[in-house]
Amino acid sequence: MAKSIIVAGVQMDVALGNPEANHAKIEARLAEAAGMGAALAVFPECALAGYCFESLDEARPFAETVPGPSTSRWSETCRKLNLHAVVGMLETDGERLFNACVLVGPKGLVGAYRKIHLPMLGVDRFTTPGDRPFEVWSIGAARVGMHICYDGAFPEAPRALALLGADLIVLPTNWPPGTECTAGHVPNTRALENNVYYMAVNRVGVERGFTFIGCSKICDTDGGVLAEAPHASEEILHAEIDVDRARNKRLVRVPGKHEIHRFADRRPDMYGPIVNLPIPPRQGRSE
Amino acid sequence: MAKSIIVAGVQMDVALGNPEANHAKIEARLAEAAGMGAALAVFPECALAGYCFESLDEARPFAETVPGPSTSRWSETCRKLNLHAVVGMLETDGERLFNACVLVGPKGLVGAYRKIHLPMLGVDRFTTPGDRPFEVWSIGAARVGMHICYDGAFPEAPRALALLGADLIVLPTNWPPGTECTAGHVPNTRALENNVYYMAVNRVGVERGFTFIGCSKICDTDGGVLAEAPHASEEILHAEIDVDRARNKRLVRVPGKHEIHRFADRRPDMYGPIVNLPIPPRQGRSE
Repeated sequence: MAKSIIVAGVQMDVALGNPEANHAKIEARLAEAAGMGAALAVFPECALAGYCFESLDEARPFAETVPGPSTSRWSETCRKLNLHAVVGMLETDGERLFNACVLVGPKGLVGAYRKIHLPMLGVDRFTTPGDRPFEVWSIGAARVGMHICYDGAFPEAPRALALLGADLIVLPTNWPPGTECTAGHVPNTRALENNVYYMAVNRVGVERGFTFIGCSKICDTDGGVLAEAPHASEEILHAEIDVDRARNKRLVRVPGKHEIHRFADRRPDMYGPIVNLPIPPRQGRSE
Repeated sequence: MAKSIIVAGVQMDVALGNPEANHAKIEARLAEAAGMGAALAVFPECALAGYCFESLDEARPFAETVPGPSTSRWSETCRKLNLHAVVGMLETDGERLFNACVLVGPKGLVGAYRKIHLPMLGVDRFTTPGDRPFEVWSIGAARVGMHICYDGAFPEAPRALALLGADLIVLPTNWPPGTECTAGHVPNTRALENNVYYMAVNRVGVERGFTFIGCSKICDTDGGVLAEAPHASEEILHAEIDVDRARNKRLVRVPGKHEIHRFADRRPDMYGPIVNLPIPPRQGRSE
């Protein structure tokens, strides 16, 4: 089995409340990514129907079950093109809506994730916080972990995915204005501190006054940039990821004189109780 | 009590095995920092006697107790100049050596820290991993947390300090070659994810073939750069830190439409058991 795969990140605009237009674009981009040799194409958060909904009622018609009609449709496209895809979408489960992403492949739904850290912003004002433990899934030789947008600002989330064995952590995102420092530094840090590949895929375009900032990025296991998109235009990034490189957490710079191990050097005995200290419910949330 | 203080970071070369030369430089720099109005001056890791010792026996003569002669000397200088200082040094405690840093002020020793994450590098090959819980200390209105060099690559360490109430987290460091990505991205991320001021103070110069990379940095609570030093030359950075800004973890970008809370939005219920999963002892450590 190949120990490296090509992964693509699709920075694109998304049409609010127009899933058919977004489906057409997603399918076209999947074909382009397959043409680049990608085994995996990652799309932004809420790529199916947009993000800036103003109420639960407005968003609900655009949410689907997982699996559901859209995961079937993407899977069918993946079957024809022979690749996998991660796509952000709103998921409905009874009365609840989740900001979710799905991993689909030629054989159907592989995995799903529900965003656990919710900002007071866009549709996240009305969705339910994710309730499922972190998981990682295999695509050929590579193990992939998923989290969404604001999740990436909490180091515990990618840390959990890395400790579970992710080689590549993907972050479908809708970074809004004011998150330039996040885009500039956080993906690199998450890659480096966990010795994993890290791909943040943001959207571009404007929804109801919010301009999404682009700057999608694929980072190497040492935090260096393998591919980077501009601020404002659509683009497909791609890079090759080497599974062995991600799994070797022991980094030897000068043998016997300069070596580190990103996981074994951790000291859970020293920070556990404090880092897991419960924090009181936040004040002043107005919805 | 003033709600903001000026803090200084002293990027400097250190003479290996020559504490008297380093004392003279530290004292001169403390006077310069005081002249800038600094309430706190932070020096690199192992600023008292250097880092690249080749054995425990070689390092031991340069280690001191805490408190001890050097903390008394620095405290006396701080008393004359009316400021506080954080200085990296080797600490002896019975048979054990620790890579430590101390916070001293006009009245003597305020706090101390023993590095908990040890790379296989320099004197850390021979020191004992830190054994004391994280703490934060007050300097006037501001609360300061300390960790050292490689500790900063583990998000749990600054997270613990921030959850304990640090407004400013300082990182005396000896970043070696190959850590450019760390210097470029990690301080910004630590500041942003915890909404704290973060100051990394590295050294310059060469010890036994290791060229330290400079690039000391003071980051704002949003991850932006307040002050930054060059790669290879000595320099004193300074910036004003605003305690209220660090303590307000609720960030309102557009009222009711875009608000986040760096602490209350955490989900310890979701990542605790995984993030604190014990990792097996590392393999292949050769000392």
